[in-house]
Amino acid sequence: MGKKQSAGAIAAIPRRLLGNRRNERYASHRLRRVERPTVRIGDHVEAVDERESGFNRAVRGDLGPVPQRERPRFVGKYPLSAALGAMQLFLVDAVDGPVAPERAPIPEDPVILSRHIKEVANFLRADAVGVCRLPSYAVYTHRVSGEPVTNTHKYAIGILVDQNYESFAGGTGHDWLSNSQSFMSYSASGFIACILADYIRRLGFPARAHHARDYEVVLPPILLQAGLGEMCRIGDVVLNPFMGPRFKAAVVTTDLPLEPDKPIDFGLQHFCSVCKKCAHECPSGAISAAGKTWHNGYEVWKPDVDACTRYRVTNARGAGCGHCIKVCPWNKPDTWYHGLSTTLASRSGPARQALTWLDDALGYGRPDPDKKWWFDLEEVDGRLVAR
Amino acid sequence: MGKKQSAGAIAAIPRRLLGNRRNERYASHRLRRVERPTVRIGDHVEAVDERESGFNRAVRGDLGPVPQRERPRFVGKYPLSAALGAMQLFLVDAVDGPVAPERAPIPEDPVILSRHIKEVANFLRADAVGVCRLPSYAVYTHRVSGEPVTNTHKYAIGILVDQNYESFAGGTGHDWLSNSQSFMSYSASGFIACILADYIRRLGFPARAHHARDYEVVLPPILLQAGLGEMCRIGDVVLNPFMGPRFKAAVVTTDLPLEPDKPIDFGLQHFCSVCKKCAHECPSGAISAAGKTWHNGYEVWKPDVDACTRYRVTNARGAGCGHCIKVCPWNKPDTWYHGLSTTLASRSGPARQALTWLDDALGYGRPDPDKKWWFDLEEVDGRLVAR
Repeated sequence: MGKKQSAGAIAAIPRRLLGNRRNERYASHRLRRVERPTVRIGDHVEAVDERESGFNRAVRGDLGPVPQRERPRFVGKYPLSAALGAMQLFLVDAVDGPVAPERAPIPEDPVILSRHIKEVANFLRADAVGVCRLPSYAVYTHRVSGEPVTNTHKYAIGILVDQNYESFAGGTGHDWLSNSQSFMSYSASGFIACILADYIRRLGFPARAHHARDYEVVLPPILLQAGLGEMCRIGDVVLNPFMGPRFKAAVVTTDLPLEPDKPIDFGLQHFCSVCKKCAHECPSGAISAAGKTWHNGYEVWKPDVDACTRYRVTNARGAGCGHCIKVCPWNKPDTWYHGLSTTLASRSGPARQALTWLDDALGYGRPDPDKKWWFDLEEVDGRLVAR
Repeated sequence: MGKKQSAGAIAAIPRRLLGNRRNERYASHRLRRVERPTVRIGDHVEAVDERESGFNRAVRGDLGPVPQRERPRFVGKYPLSAALGAMQLFLVDAVDGPVAPERAPIPEDPVILSRHIKEVANFLRADAVGVCRLPSYAVYTHRVSGEPVTNTHKYAIGILVDQNYESFAGGTGHDWLSNSQSFMSYSASGFIACILADYIRRLGFPARAHHARDYEVVLPPILLQAGLGEMCRIGDVVLNPFMGPRFKAAVVTTDLPLEPDKPIDFGLQHFCSVCKKCAHECPSGAISAAGKTWHNGYEVWKPDVDACTRYRVTNARGAGCGHCIKVCPWNKPDTWYHGLSTTLASRSGPARQALTWLDDALGYGRPDPDKKWWFDLEEVDGRLVAR
C-alpha cells in the first residue's frame, strides 16, 4: 500500500478544494442533511429475494395468464425500448472483473475518496450521485436464477440518470415511449456504473456494478440512505428534489473506503401527505391515498405492487407506465423558477399546498402534443404495426 | 411497406410540430446554414486507408521506436481512460446486427424522419446531432486489419458528446486526465450510436454504428457536411460553435431516407486566421500558424499529424494531449454571456479580434487548480505509481 507515495503530488490536493464539486448538475451539497431518513425504519428489515419482485412474479404466472404472456414482450414490443434493452445485455458481462493486485497510491481519507468518486461519476455524465454504507438488507438473498447472493461490500454508490423532462411533457407517461424513458435511464446509468466499478477495481479495490439487467442489491434503500431522495407516496420509490421521480438508477458496491452521505429532508413527507395527485391519477389504482403503513420495517405509503405490475406489463395502448412520474409536481424542468419553487416547497408547509394547486392550474401533468416526437408502434408477430 | 397504415395516427404528426426540437441541448437550428462548407473542397477527394492514420502508423513503428512501444499503453496507463477504453470493447459487437425483415409503418417523408432521428439521438443524451449524405470519400478503403470496406449506406448521422468543460478548466489539457476526457466522449457517443443504429434496424432499415473502437468511416468530412462544425486551425478537426473543439463523435450510417442538414458558417475561417492561439500553444509544435494549403482536395490549415501523434502517445507527464482543445477560445461553458460572445464572434470580424484578446485577458486557457479533482497516476509494470 503506497502510503509513502501518497505523500507526493496526490496528497497535496487539499480537502477544501475537493469540497467544491464542479461537475455536479444539481446543487445536491446544498440540501438539508439529517441523521436518519425521514421515514421511520424499525429495528429489523428483512433482506428480500429477487424472485419475489413484481416482474418476476409475473413471469411465473402469479399475476395471471395475461401478465405471464405479456411479460417477455412488454419492453421488446416497442422498437426504441427494445434497442435500449438489447444494449443492456452487452453490459451484463461488464459488471465485475479482476481487481488490481496492488492498491493505488491514493489518499486514504474517505472524505477525499468520496468526493473524488462523485466527481468521476459526474464526469461520466451521472445526473446525481450519492454514497452510503451498504445496508445488509439491501442485498438480495437470492437472484432470479435461485443462486444465493454473497455480496459483502461495505459501501454503495448510487448513480441517477434523468429520464428526460421534455419527453414526459409530450406524453401521458403511459404511452408507447414509457418503457423507453425508463430504459434510457437504466442503460445510461448502468453504463456509467460499469465504467466506475472498473475504475475502482483498477485502483485496487473490489467493486461491482448493479444495473437493471443484473442486480445483487435492491435500490431504494441505498438511494434513501445515500441522500438521493426521500421515500414518496408512489411507494417503493425514492423522489429526488431536483428530478422528482423522473430518473432511474444504477449502483456500484465497493470496499473502497468512502465517507457516506447523510439522508436528506426537503419536506416531502408532508408534501406527499397533502398532494395525492399520483394516487388520484394512477391508471391502475395501485397508489393509495391513505396514510402510511408498516411494511418490512419501513413506515411508508405502500402501493399495490401487483396492480402496478399487471398494468405496466399488459398496457395495450402503450409500453409500460410511468404516469405517476409524469403527474408528480416534482417532475419539472431545470429552470430557475422551478428551482425557487422547489426551495419554497422544501421549507414551507403552506407553500407546498399552494404549489400543488398552482401545478394543476398551470396544466402540468397534461400531455403537450407539440412536444411529441415519437411514433406509436407495436411489434406483433415479428412486424411493427401502427397504433 | 405499410403505406396504408401510415395514414393512421403516425402520419397525423404535423411537420410543423416536428420542427420544434425540444430535446436539443443547443440551438443548432438557429445557426446560419450555407450551401457548401466554408473551406474549399476540390473536385476530387481520395478515400483513405485506416492503416495510414497516425495512431496506426505509430503501431507499425513509422514514428520511431518510442511511439511504437508507448502506443499500446498510452490509454491503458491511466486507470480512468483504461476503464473507458475497456468499456468500448463491449461496444464492438454492438455496431451492427440483423435488420427487421419488414419496414415499419412510419412516414416516408425524409424531413419527418430526419427530425425524428435527431429527437431520438437527443433523447439518448447526444449533445448535438446532424445528418448528411455519406460522402464516398468518407468511407475507409481498408480497415486496420487490411480488410476492404464495403459500406454503401446513403446517409450518415453525426453524434457529438461534450468532453466536460469543468474538467478542462481544471487541467492543462495534456495532463493525466487528457485521454479520459477523449474516451469519456468516445464511449458515450459510441453507446448512443449503437442504440440508435439498433433502433433504425428494428424499423426495417440497414444501419451501422461507427465508434472509436470500430470505424468504417472517417469522421471530420461527415461532421462538416452535417453542419456540426467548421474546419478549424487545429486541423483535421471540426469545431462546433457551442462546444468548440471540446467533443468527440460517433456516427451511424444508414439507408433510412433522411433530409440532410446543410453546412454551417459562424465566421470560423476568419476567426482561426487571426487567433492562432492553438498554434502558439501546441506543446508539440504540430499546429501551423501559416495559411491554408491544399491537402487531398481540401484547402485547410494542415497540422503535422506525426508530431501530434508522437507527442500524444509518448507524453511522459500525462496520458494523451488535448491542449489545443483547452486553449481554444471557443472552449467555453454553456452560459448566456458565452452564448452572446459566440453570437458576436459569429457575425462580426472586429468582435472576433476583441474576444480573442479578452479570452487571454480573462485567463481562459490557464488551468484553475481549484477545479482539479483527479489523481495523477501511471500504470508501470502492472502497478499504479503516483506522478
